[in-house]
Amino acid sequence: MNVSSEHLRDFVYDIFKTAGLSDEDSYTVADSLVAANLRGVDSHGVTRVPIYMKRLKEGAINPTPDIKIMQESDGVLLVDGDDGMGQIVSREAMRLGIAKAKKSGGVHIGVTRSSHFGAGAYFVKRGVEEDLITFAMSNAPSTMAPWGGIQPYFGTNPYAYGVPAGRYDPIILDMATSVVARGKIIMAAQNGQDIPEGWAIDQNGKPTTNSQDALDGSVLPFGGPKGYGISLMIDIMSGVLTGAGFGPHINNIYGDYDQPQNVGHFFQLIDVQQFMPAQMYKQRIDQMIEEIKSSPAAEGVEEVLVPGEIENRTEKTRLENGIDLGEDVYKGLKQVGKEYGLNIEGYVSLNKTI
Amino acid sequence: MNVSSEHLRDFVYDIFKTAGLSDEDSYTVADSLVAANLRGVDSHGVTRVPIYMKRLKEGAINPTPDIKIMQESDGVLLVDGDDGMGQIVSREAMRLGIAKAKKSGGVHIGVTRSSHFGAGAYFVKRGVEEDLITFAMSNAPSTMAPWGGIQPYFGTNPYAYGVPAGRYDPIILDMATSVVARGKIIMAAQNGQDIPEGWAIDQNGKPTTNSQDALDGSVLPFGGPKGYGISLMIDIMSGVLTGAGFGPHINNIYGDYDQPQNVGHFFQLIDVQQFMPAQMYKQRIDQMIEEIKSSPAAEGVEEVLVPGEIENRTEKTRLENGIDLGEDVYKGLKQVGKEYGLNIEGYVSLNKTI
Repeated sequence: MNVSSEHLRDFVYDIFKTAGLSDEDSYTVADSLVAANLRGVDSHGVTRVPIYMKRLKEGAINPTPDIKIMQESDGVLLVDGDDGMGQIVSREAMRLGIAKAKKSGGVHIGVTRSSHFGAGAYFVKRGVEEDLITFAMSNAPSTMAPWGGIQPYFGTNPYAYGVPAGRYDPIILDMATSVVARGKIIMAAQNGQDIPEGWAIDQNGKPTTNSQDALDGSVLPFGGPKGYGISLMIDIMSGVLTGAGFGPHINNIYGDYDQPQNVGHFFQLIDVQQFMPAQMYKQRIDQMIEEIKSSPAAEGVEEVLVPGEIENRTEKTRLENGIDLGEDVYKGLKQVGKEYGLNIEGYVSLNKTI
Repeated sequence: MNVSSEHLRDFVYDIFKTAGLSDEDSYTVADSLVAANLRGVDSHGVTRVPIYMKRLKEGAINPTPDIKIMQESDGVLLVDGDDGMGQIVSREAMRLGIAKAKKSGGVHIGVTRSSHFGAGAYFVKRGVEEDLITFAMSNAPSTMAPWGGIQPYFGTNPYAYGVPAGRYDPIILDMATSVVARGKIIMAAQNGQDIPEGWAIDQNGKPTTNSQDALDGSVLPFGGPKGYGISLMIDIMSGVLTGAGFGPHINNIYGDYDQPQNVGHFFQLIDVQQFMPAQMYKQRIDQMIEEIKSSPAAEGVEEVLVPGEIENRTEKTRLENGIDLGEDVYKGLKQVGKEYGLNIEGYVSLNKTI
């Protein structure tokens, strides 16, 4: 069943309104979740609505956070999220950061006492729209052992960046620092399927292709010890430096229902115009993209891509043809709608669906 | 033959003095090269002396660069290296950046018209000594195809960071964004050995274990498309944004002898004290290191490590027992000494060796 992104956004907006979020905040959450679905990143899309609502209801997320600047200097911002939704806290941190980056040329932004922020791409795009090279990272509940270890310590700490371009779409990278998202292993376990070697280790630290053993064990960082180094860096910047939780001291989004997650984020914004005129910068980045795109492809590869191209294409298709939510996600939304007196069928009813 | 790091530094210092470098500049180059050897990163140590001297002699490197600030704002510095040695340009960029970071809390530093800067760890350590979290990256001559491509576009663009700690040694990561340094493949080819699968592709983009085919082809990024994303980011920050060369528009250090490389670097400095009191920060990072270190190790793994531990241990051993240069490197140094009227044996003679 394909649902139009607009109708889906309307429904999710109304859902979050019932939890006491303001109009603007409800829109941010709805828009960011639907944006993830549009880009094909369904694991970070509206499938999260039920768990977010549960956490709002149980008090783990503050629906009306008092988001405040804790520390400020010309190149640094530290923002307290007051246990609000990660999307709202990050929107505010980015808003403050964009204004500062326009003045000082570049800013490092730490965020403490936040929650799951969804997909980082949503925030880096806000920076890119202002001609800022933008980085977004976050720590997350632990599922990944340090390299050589067997006990989960790090999350799959996401790393995202956005780079403005001229006549090309901006380059947008948004990735977990694990080999694959843990959700893929959960899905394999549910279907009784094996997973490829290299994704995870079992409880004893041995490579495993058994999806259940993998879930009892630990996911592996991308690129071995080098990816471990990147994931560690993200936790230091997002957790240690901001005052948020780090390592195993972050509460699980699917559990600890009455405990704030205490996730930390880290953003960086860099104004390209402090380095050279915007037009010159755009000519240079366009040249790079063009050279990469026109570079000969390996056998069996259709086209050499830059990060974000696949997601951009998916977005165009899904804007036109709608988003196929899948039965389980649709049922979950229907159920959560019912709880809050909203009928999803009224939003995506026959004459409104695509 | 083990050589004391001090004697080696003296010799290298005198060598660079003959090329017209100032006392301070000669010391920086000598110290940074020997520091790489001390940390066990011999590929970036004194083995580079002959090629650096050749490039100085042929005019590709300016021995007395006029290093200047091109752009400056509270959070940004853009530094023109005037085709000086990368180590000297980077020292100056870091010096300017450290002063600015102490004021503004954080700074992004672009460097253009520079040359090979050796090992990034040397510069991040300068920042760490000032309680600054420090990032250092650089682009490099192309040897790595974009993901899905077959033609080298990126360099093995190094990425380094340093994180100050309290009672522990700082965390220092310094890595190439290729699976392995290209030097290892060169060495395998010289010895007629195969390389493991996953290191490189041949000219047609096919995985290869033949070291010569690998050299004719392209090294692979660490972690597949994710590592490609990191390497691309480094080239954007170091090359596109700074005005330096990028992609294939960077001259080869072992060729183009009369052409400046036009390498770009990018540094970031973040003052931890703009986020929280230094003591609190140090307690937090120490807690993280302790938790990682005391985490159970996988079977066959002696100890869970944080980045930099192996290199720190090598440094302690080599400071005590000297550096084993290997016959080829020693011969190269002896030869280059002869050209400039310096006898290496006078520096590391019997009574001076360890």
